[in-house]
Amino acid sequence: MRGAVIHGPGDVRLENRPDPAVTAPTDAVVRTVATCVCGSDLWKYRGIAAVPAPRPIGHEYVGVVEAVGDAVTTVAPGDFVVGGFLHSDGTCSVCRHGQQANCLHGGGYDGCQAEVIRVPNADGTLLATPGQPDDDLVPSLLALSDVMCTGWHAAVCAGVQAGSSVVVVGDGAVGLSGVLAAAQLGATTIVAMSRHADRQALAREFGATHVVAERGADGLAAVRELTDGIGADCVLECVGTEEARAQAVACARPGGMVGLVGVPHGDLPTEEMFWANKGVRGGPAPVRAYLPHLLDLVWRREIDPGRVFDLALPLAEVAEAYAAMDERRAIKVLLRP
Amino acid sequence: MRGAVIHGPGDVRLENRPDPAVTAPTDAVVRTVATCVCGSDLWKYRGIAAVPAPRPIGHEYVGVVEAVGDAVTTVAPGDFVVGGFLHSDGTCSVCRHGQQANCLHGGGYDGCQAEVIRVPNADGTLLATPGQPDDDLVPSLLALSDVMCTGWHAAVCAGVQAGSSVVVVGDGAVGLSGVLAAAQLGATTIVAMSRHADRQALAREFGATHVVAERGADGLAAVRELTDGIGADCVLECVGTEEARAQAVACARPGGMVGLVGVPHGDLPTEEMFWANKGVRGGPAPVRAYLPHLLDLVWRREIDPGRVFDLALPLAEVAEAYAAMDERRAIKVLLRP
Repeated sequence: MRGAVIHGPGDVRLENRPDPAVTAPTDAVVRTVATCVCGSDLWKYRGIAAVPAPRPIGHEYVGVVEAVGDAVTTVAPGDFVVGGFLHSDGTCSVCRHGQQANCLHGGGYDGCQAEVIRVPNADGTLLATPGQPDDDLVPSLLALSDVMCTGWHAAVCAGVQAGSSVVVVGDGAVGLSGVLAAAQLGATTIVAMSRHADRQALAREFGATHVVAERGADGLAAVRELTDGIGADCVLECVGTEEARAQAVACARPGGMVGLVGVPHGDLPTEEMFWANKGVRGGPAPVRAYLPHLLDLVWRREIDPGRVFDLALPLAEVAEAYAAMDERRAIKVLLRP
Repeated sequence: MRGAVIHGPGDVRLENRPDPAVTAPTDAVVRTVATCVCGSDLWKYRGIAAVPAPRPIGHEYVGVVEAVGDAVTTVAPGDFVVGGFLHSDGTCSVCRHGQQANCLHGGGYDGCQAEVIRVPNADGTLLATPGQPDDDLVPSLLALSDVMCTGWHAAVCAGVQAGSSVVVVGDGAVGLSGVLAAAQLGATTIVAMSRHADRQALAREFGATHVVAERGADGLAAVRELTDGIGADCVLECVGTEEARAQAVACARPGGMVGLVGVPHGDLPTEEMFWANKGVRGGPAPVRAYLPHLLDLVWRREIDPGRVFDLALPLAEVAEAYAAMDERRAIKVLLRP
């Protein structure tokens, strides 16, 4: 089967790789129906994260189960499934707290930008759809594999609830998903910080009540003008750079919470946080914890998180998918094997 | 009137100072019935925080109102009152969120280790007791001025609720108050990290189910043994040093929360926090937000937070009070004018 391999900065290739097989009784083998490129993949593509040797890449997928190990009971060959960007056993003491991203026996995959993948811990990782999905639902189902659940995690960690004021820092696929999550959770003021017209438009469709294009002190002033002069109850940090994290903390009101989901590439202003009683919480999203609710919303077409995909390409064009995201010609690229 | 003045490290003196007076219509003048020394006062006493010039010191008090300004409506001369370590107007947009420690128009006092003090923003700061208290209630009422509400804040920020597992880092008056708070909030496992027999004993009386004397890796191992192998749901950080903050974060389980109330003298392991989905929240406690509930508990003798005072001295012996706390001969010293 064919799968994407990153060889170094700017160099992703589709290659022939060994066919995955069930190697443990808890495994499933899934033939992908769609996969995609993540903002976090770009850290490697841009040379910011090291790639010491060629390695398979990608961690988002939906597909159809081809085979399962003897111990797998919740999914079967033929099922259409969604899984998160990390696998989890669903039974350890950490998973039982709904923190599947930190499962004691979990981990990553051997590259999901591929035609066929092996999913360890299938029962604790995969969720089958109620039936075979209509093709137009595939992008939204794929979005659940990472970005929608990650945006949701940011909103949950920031404590968004009915009536909250929310600022979303970052207008990539995760930030836009965070806007959608905040709206679903009942926020009444949702400020999307975005400088790109297309992303601003999607943010508004997802529920943003305001858009702030400025950053830094000007951005903070604009946010305060929309939030009673003091900042927002909840801020979703969906970038990870030191500047974005500082902006997020600044935009929270005293006593407010910042949900962190941007992969951290910089520190936090912990002293400022303390004196202003601003909290932070977040990390890798426990996708499996959120899947039942969000899959239901997608299946009933109440949310359409797949709209973050503004380009779809064949898997064979994976190199172009990376280039398009790197050059910001696309928010997020869906790949079809 | 007489009040304490710190002149430099190790040098606190009781001096004659001007009699406070009502200077704004929102002021009250309060004759103190009791005041005390705070762990945070010791930062100055030990020379860790600079004292560039002599200044009045102390920020905890209970007392009887002597005079009020024309705009004060909720307390009157003769009322026995408790106030927090910061004053707050109670009406600004921050106070309305219950974050009185960050009031837009609040601040500190001109030294509360004194016979008479001026309390700005009296309506937003003071709470009168239902009547004159029995003398034996005074320590517990005084504890509400800072340490009990600060321990409570740590527990609230850490999200303690019925059934929580809780670790308390720090066995000073705030840490012990945190144990009491966790018990009141329904925690079922409460681990006090303490190396001092007297403090361990009080922690157990306040509700600690376990005591861990070890620190560092050994302390973490002992905590994990008590918490399903993964750490506690909630950790209360009541010290502020870098070591204590690292210990607190380490003791939280994946997805757990750390309530921060120790005045920060060191950074947080923010990268470790992110990957393990551990959150932090906290800062100066909004005493006025917690006073109604906690004063009620004290008044009905359901809690006895004043037990953290293990030494009482006349205000005239304020220098000895500092020395006793500095040398750990006392957990916390109450001063009577």
